[in-house]
Amino acid sequence: MTRRTFLAGSAALGVRAVLVGQQSPVSAGSADAALIEDLVAGYRILAQQGVLDGFGHVSARHNRSANRFVMSRSLAPELVTAGDLLEFDLDGNAINANGRAPYSERFIHAEIYRARSDVGSIVHAHAPSLIPFGVTGVPLRPVYHMASFIGSGVPVFDIRKQFGMTDMLVSDSAKGRALAQTLGDKSCVLMRGHGVAVVGGTIPIAVGRSIYIEMNARIQAQAMSMSGNVTYLDPREAQKVMEAGENRGYERAWELWKSKAMGK
Amino acid sequence: MTRRTFLAGSAALGVRAVLVGQQSPVSAGSADAALIEDLVAGYRILAQQGVLDGFGHVSARHNRSANRFVMSRSLAPELVTAGDLLEFDLDGNAINANGRAPYSERFIHAEIYRARSDVGSIVHAHAPSLIPFGVTGVPLRPVYHMASFIGSGVPVFDIRKQFGMTDMLVSDSAKGRALAQTLGDKSCVLMRGHGVAVVGGTIPIAVGRSIYIEMNARIQAQAMSMSGNVTYLDPREAQKVMEAGENRGYERAWELWKSKAMGK
Amino acid sequence: MTRRTFLAGSAALGVRAVLVGQQSPVSAGSADAALIEDLVAGYRILAQQGVLDGFGHVSARHNRSANRFVMSRSLAPELVTAGDLLEFDLDGNAINANGRAPYSERFIHAEIYRARSDVGSIVHAHAPSLIPFGVTGVPLRPVYHMASFIGSGVPVFDIRKQFGMTDMLVSDSAKGRALAQTLGDKSCVLMRGHGVAVVGGTIPIAVGRSIYIEMNARIQAQAMSMSGNVTYLDPREAQKVMEAGENRGYERAWELWKSKAMGK
Amino acid sequence: MTRRTFLAGSAALGVRAVLVGQQSPVSAGSADAALIEDLVAGYRILAQQGVLDGFGHVSARHNRSANRFVMSRSLAPELVTAGDLLEFDLDGNAINANGRAPYSERFIHAEIYRARSDVGSIVHAHAPSLIPFGVTGVPLRPVYHMASFIGSGVPVFDIRKQFGMTDMLVSDSAKGRALAQTLGDKSCVLMRGHGVAVVGGTIPIAVGRSIYIEMNARIQAQAMSMSGNVTYLDPREAQKVMEAGENRGYERAWELWKSKAMGK
Repeated sequence: MTRRTFLAGSAALGVRAVLVGQQSPVSAGSADAALIEDLVAGYRILAQQGVLDGFGHVSARHNRSANRFVMSRSLAPELVTAGDLLEFDLDGNAINANGRAPYSERFIHAEIYRARSDVGSIVHAHAPSLIPFGVTGVPLRPVYHMASFIGSGVPVFDIRKQFGMTDMLVSDSAKGRALAQTLGDKSCVLMRGHGVAVVGGTIPIAVGRSIYIEMNARIQAQAMSMSGNVTYLDPREAQKVMEAGENRGYERAWELWKSKAMGK
Repeated sequence: MTRRTFLAGSAALGVRAVLVGQQSPVSAGSADAALIEDLVAGYRILAQQGVLDGFGHVSARHNRSANRFVMSRSLAPELVTAGDLLEFDLDGNAINANGRAPYSERFIHAEIYRARSDVGSIVHAHAPSLIPFGVTGVPLRPVYHMASFIGSGVPVFDIRKQFGMTDMLVSDSAKGRALAQTLGDKSCVLMRGHGVAVVGGTIPIAVGRSIYIEMNARIQAQAMSMSGNVTYLDPREAQKVMEAGENRGYERAWELWKSKAMGK
Repeated sequence: MTRRTFLAGSAALGVRAVLVGQQSPVSAGSADAALIEDLVAGYRILAQQGVLDGFGHVSARHNRSANRFVMSRSLAPELVTAGDLLEFDLDGNAINANGRAPYSERFIHAEIYRARSDVGSIVHAHAPSLIPFGVTGVPLRPVYHMASFIGSGVPVFDIRKQFGMTDMLVSDSAKGRALAQTLGDKSCVLMRGHGVAVVGGTIPIAVGRSIYIEMNARIQAQAMSMSGNVTYLDPREAQKVMEAGENRGYERAWELWKSKAMGK
Repeated sequence: MTRRTFLAGSAALGVRAVLVGQQSPVSAGSADAALIEDLVAGYRILAQQGVLDGFGHVSARHNRSANRFVMSRSLAPELVTAGDLLEFDLDGNAINANGRAPYSERFIHAEIYRARSDVGSIVHAHAPSLIPFGVTGVPLRPVYHMASFIGSGVPVFDIRKQFGMTDMLVSDSAKGRALAQTLGDKSCVLMRGHGVAVVGGTIPIAVGRSIYIEMNARIQAQAMSMSGNVTYLDPREAQKVMEAGENRGYERAWELWKSKAMGK
């Protein structure tokens, strides 16, 4: 990744239509090495932890521009290396594709970054344990403190409501916007018959939440099968966990996950 | 595998009875190296992904003759190498066995290739999560976009209907034909008290479908245990996924699966 | 293991009481190398396949004497080597212990070998999926052809019936005999609140059955959770599978299991 | 770990308040090498067996002082080495932190050691299969002999009862004391919406119980899903198992677990 001049705002909203299909947007410059390292780790960690399989993706907002984000070219998560990372603007245009195909659902990421300035990283996954909560109307709720980040609820996005019969993919800006609207100010949004999008301020937080929302789904399903009367975390308990520093930023686990996923 | 003259139709239907036990059918010649590589990978991928265990098999239609297909000699999937592949005609006769035992259920493959010119690859498996759908009357339906290939339904073959009390195996042409008839124009057919047969135009598609029908079965069972009111993909949604290029031919995942299964 | 003279019948039933605690019974001589190799493989395979954990054991009847059997000294299955194998008589006396502790439940094996001349190998396991069938009264039945060996039923042994409050272990000949009586002429017997004993004519058959009874338990539990109306194999179908050569002696799978478990 | 003079009682209860924040308590001296080795193994075993993930911890009472215990600095279990172990007094003060952060929930350990002189080792875990039993009111009971240590019941600690809305963590002595009181004389205590604490006389026993309480939870949930009438171990049976030497001190399994977790 070659360094280029930092040109914040070059892909500002007003010129979006003009840029598409006409000229490549200008790069925000190289992302920090630490961010790149964590992003590659994020792909591999989520594959190793069974949240992603051959599909799904992770992104991070560019550290030099709020209007840029970084994610892999279309590639299975477990195979992603730093050399596969592309820079995108918030319309989903790749800055440095050089013929490499982007993920068709990059608009999930683009539109959430546009709508949520607090978000620094996003995961999109099809984890099997989460799908049932998107297709049954059963609300996903925190059964233990590790999932306090869903204490204020997990909305469900049904693409059918606004877009009718589709191929289920969030493959353009309009669909991405609708998804971002359903997400609102929450940490996660289920996608009916499809998967989930999880957001966080940092890569370790988005990745950690993806791991523990999946775990919570399994535990909740098990608890519900045992009793009609499950005691979930009180929203105030969940709030206190978040205020105390949500799982301490997943730092302790991140160190482990990263060392295992990167094989060192 | 030595090259021989391409003699399409040498095992045409009319002379089937004569050939059996009398003379070995003529080979269609060497299959493409890429097809052989993918077929070996298919065996190993499905073992690694937990769809096959010590039993079950994968085949591919021969690239030089629509009347020939290639599959391993009787061997556990995880152990299959290129040297174990045999060529068969559509009556299930091995062309180049040289004393090596074929799978007794090769007729599953032979008769589906005969009935379905669009099919290029077939998987037969006993995946545990699929068995319940074959013995309960609960229809297998797509809970998410990854399983859109079953959007038009999964028929159940009950060998008992036509053949009465058997050893459950599809071990001759008549049973293979009955199975192919139950499959009809679908992508998958469950076999009551036995397993499944999955077809596709290519090896990656048949293998990918085998992986995601298994995943869908697990997810659907979980969803059903949580609610009596599961929202499946609308058949038109499933159709749109298929038209948009069913999971993009599983290309992205295939690259991963293959690299993991072949240890490189 | 040094070779000794073959003395069949030296531990005949009539002199059992005399021998115990008085003099070590005479060895039947070295067991065949192939039997020893398969027995060690059996321990490791069942550990690798998740049927055994740190507890449980496998044995084989001695090839030189119907009154002797071979099993490991008290050791976790995954650690067993040929050097850990001991020879026992049918009263559970070790011939060649040399201070090494035997499994306290060797009487499971001893008494089944005494009662069933057709049995050549026995597995005792605590596999988690099997325990529920021993404590609920729900009969374990074959949901697919791979488990045809339980087509005639799986009895449940409740140690409490004859022995009242115990430490649950089959740790003497009387308890072993009661278990063997409950087993009768079947292939498997569940032990309430404890585990299972599985028998077979050969080591691969006893091991293969242990793997597939566990698999069947998981599948059956899943099927039952989906429907109150599960179609099990007809007893005549199960019988036909057995007559056709029960999973072909597990030969194809055995080759795979052994190569994986022995790391070659 | 440097050797220091053994000064039992230096952190006696009466001077607790004075010591906190004023001067570091005096070390009881180096713990035995065998205890350190087993403690490190305990962390790694529980990670490998799926009882701990990136969170949770194991401790052992110091062999030189009943008022000291040893546990890792704040670190993911799988990464713990002997150099990460810290010594604590029963108020949760680290003796030799040297700037290394302790686990915030060390008070679980401190207060149980204070209350239970018979306890030599403690595990705190968030194992997914145990959470449902803490949030549904369904009592955890022994379905098989391997879990006889819960034969007298598993109490559930609800932090809300005494402390109202919290961040769910047992992060001070008062909360630790309340947890220890709920534990009483039992072997395990579930923590509502959080996890479990498991105690034992030795590290292998606390670790072994942690593994088998998790296993029992999975089996019990499965059994309950199959029948409303599960036969649990009779309390007298459980008692007899304990008297006969609870799973023989887990010795046989410990040898295996340790060799696998320590990679030798």
